[in-house]
Amino acid sequence: MPTRLAVIGGNPAGMSAASVAKRRDPQLEVVAFERGPYTSYAACGIPYLIGGQIAEVDDLVARSPERHRANGIDVRIRTEVVAVDLAARTLTTGDGTTEPFDQLLVATGAHATPPPIPGAEATEPARTLDAAEKLRGEVSRHGTHAVVIGAGYIGLEMAENLRQRGMRVTMVDRAPQVMGTLDADMAEHVQTAAEGAGIKVLLNVDIEEIVRHEDGRPRLVRTSEGDLPADHVVIGTGAKPDVALAEAAGLTLGETGALAVDDHLRTPGHDGVFAAGDCVESHHRILDRPVNIQLGTHANQQGRVAGINLAGGDARFPGVLGTAISRICRYEVARTGLTEREAADAGIDAVAATIQARTRAEYYPGAGPVWVKLVAERGGGRLLGGQIVGTETAGKRIDTIATALWAGMTAGELQFVDLAYAPPVSPVRDPVLVAARAVAGR
Amino acid sequence: MPTRLAVIGGNPAGMSAASVAKRRDPQLEVVAFERGPYTSYAACGIPYLIGGQIAEVDDLVARSPERHRANGIDVRIRTEVVAVDLAARTLTTGDGTTEPFDQLLVATGAHATPPPIPGAEATEPARTLDAAEKLRGEVSRHGTHAVVIGAGYIGLEMAENLRQRGMRVTMVDRAPQVMGTLDADMAEHVQTAAEGAGIKVLLNVDIEEIVRHEDGRPRLVRTSEGDLPADHVVIGTGAKPDVALAEAAGLTLGETGALAVDDHLRTPGHDGVFAAGDCVESHHRILDRPVNIQLGTHANQQGRVAGINLAGGDARFPGVLGTAISRICRYEVARTGLTEREAADAGIDAVAATIQARTRAEYYPGAGPVWVKLVAERGGGRLLGGQIVGTETAGKRIDTIATALWAGMTAGELQFVDLAYAPPVSPVRDPVLVAARAVAGR
Repeated sequence: MPTRLAVIGGNPAGMSAASVAKRRDPQLEVVAFERGPYTSYAACGIPYLIGGQIAEVDDLVARSPERHRANGIDVRIRTEVVAVDLAARTLTTGDGTTEPFDQLLVATGAHATPPPIPGAEATEPARTLDAAEKLRGEVSRHGTHAVVIGAGYIGLEMAENLRQRGMRVTMVDRAPQVMGTLDADMAEHVQTAAEGAGIKVLLNVDIEEIVRHEDGRPRLVRTSEGDLPADHVVIGTGAKPDVALAEAAGLTLGETGALAVDDHLRTPGHDGVFAAGDCVESHHRILDRPVNIQLGTHANQQGRVAGINLAGGDARFPGVLGTAISRICRYEVARTGLTEREAADAGIDAVAATIQARTRAEYYPGAGPVWVKLVAERGGGRLLGGQIVGTETAGKRIDTIATALWAGMTAGELQFVDLAYAPPVSPVRDPVLVAARAVAGR
Repeated sequence: MPTRLAVIGGNPAGMSAASVAKRRDPQLEVVAFERGPYTSYAACGIPYLIGGQIAEVDDLVARSPERHRANGIDVRIRTEVVAVDLAARTLTTGDGTTEPFDQLLVATGAHATPPPIPGAEATEPARTLDAAEKLRGEVSRHGTHAVVIGAGYIGLEMAENLRQRGMRVTMVDRAPQVMGTLDADMAEHVQTAAEGAGIKVLLNVDIEEIVRHEDGRPRLVRTSEGDLPADHVVIGTGAKPDVALAEAAGLTLGETGALAVDDHLRTPGHDGVFAAGDCVESHHRILDRPVNIQLGTHANQQGRVAGINLAGGDARFPGVLGTAISRICRYEVARTGLTEREAADAGIDAVAATIQARTRAEYYPGAGPVWVKLVAERGGGRLLGGQIVGTETAGKRIDTIATALWAGMTAGELQFVDLAYAPPVSPVRDPVLVAARAVAGR
């Protein structure tokens, strides 16, 4: 009898694992359970679906249930797993069916955490394609005012795209800055760009209530600074790993509250039980401790590693840096490793330097500003992190910094790396190298 | 009496060194000799001056003689150094003047090497601003046919820009491929792009003669495949380090024919005599031997290192990878380290993999093709090199590969580096990581 692998979660982590495992071991019986109607979709594309740059929900589906089935994976959509019995090696779905498995992959993802205010519970966060489709329909049908609660990268992307749909957009956050994943000095450039695109940004403001019409639609958002008209409310205040099912089944949570896994994505103490994606914690290579950072890149890589191991292979997931990028209004915004504040919070004696440069040769048409901030251990020690804000093409330069961090380089080493230059793509002194030189001297 | 530093060459290497040295040691007396009328100009911008994307010659001058003088550097333009007496510590300029020095920096650059065919000697290669200005004037005044001899990156950039000026452009090379700095399979994409932009590409063709009108202007180019009408002829067949002056003075040439220097840019055996830029050889970090690669990035960095050391500091130039990028027609074209052919020529047992991906998420508007080729030691050894061809934003991804090469990473390590993803800037599986995975399996 072939081994049976059950995958909980039809997201990139779960379906990458399912696909890789099935491809490497065609004898493996693979069944995947997804609570919604879609599989393998790009949640990162949702803001652009709202904004209209992406026309169809299906465009965001990298691989449909039908395509997975054609590859021999038994996909059950609209099927929620409600209980797992690790001893009996069975799981139970919402309709009471019991399914056996030999191996299990938990890829339950994360769920949004709206602030605990009256009315918030009725505002579905646009994390899923279904919710995104609903919001898109509502935006196209009525209303002129939108309020975005939470000024992180998802909030900003949503705000920008609602603005492109002609909404008057106000973004509210209780924090003193936008983009909490950046240091305040870098986040200021992003705020300027958002305001330049017509988004009203209110910081240090508490939300008190989302007031609704009788039919449930939002009417206004009550804040510590007064009422904001709100035909639409989008909440982007972060997400927590979805671990209730796994915890109830007896899997171990780590110190972050996410599922603990080893570097092979195995759950400790449960042979043949793996977990991957937003619901697990990962080793942070700079902090040298587990973190829960929810990014599609990690989910994909982890899914692949888990898939290899589920098919009898031996792959290792070597950890994360938390490298992330967004395009927000006229800027690309990117980060990797630790910010200056995160380094301080971790008790590291760090120095930082920020430089401003241009994306192309000064004289070449289309050159725009780019700010690069690097953080390093004081006294010429290893690099700790980097942040970039700048016009088109600025952001992916973060990969150079991420690769240097990955290799454990110092700023003194990075400043001499032989990077590429031509007038249409870079100044002769690459902004990353200029920043490395600046921080190497501190 | 203050120390006197003489710099030969008003190019980026020479003037970076002069500026850095003067800034670090204001007591230092610095005199710089430049044979032409300009200092510190961006030769890499010349094709765009021809094409009209850059309007003024002065736009390419990063720092004029006047600005250098305002910084306390005694710049002598239109002044050629014709002899150096290292024992007497004097140099002689074209008008017979003798100038003393305590320290010397040789930054004589490189000179074009036109093919040894009749008529070529009268075609001034557009390597200097004066020559570029002259060509620009001629192109604007007359003619419809241009022939570019040499299909390397400079030839291709010139061909594209002549095309933009409305010329009918034929590019001729005796080699069987364009872009000899790439492997043939990657160069094919560049050729396709050039042809798509209306450039006629003739390969495996020998040039026999440049036939001229009585007034000296080109009339046609005679080739092994017939005559090509040519109102303008541009030669881009490479350049050799300009070492005649230094060799006559007794400085040592290395195995490449360029000036030998140590990692502090000191010339061996001559205290206080430094050299930097296109005229020197550099340590290649992958080949572990000296090479002469002429790039503005190296010249700038070397100038800075030499300047620090000339001012009594202690800086080390850690070598090169030969990272280079061009924008050619619709593609960005980049390379670093060794090509597959270069690895084979060096006797290295190498494997290679090429992948095709997209520059953005598949569903995001503006996504274009990108090919990434990686070369690595067989059996999971270190990475040896990378090549990228693709639409806008593709090329600077080479920096990620360059940083991995610099750090001595293997493809197996690179495939997991935490790179940045968002739909407008990358697919979730970054093309560089996909290529690393492909070559890691070979």
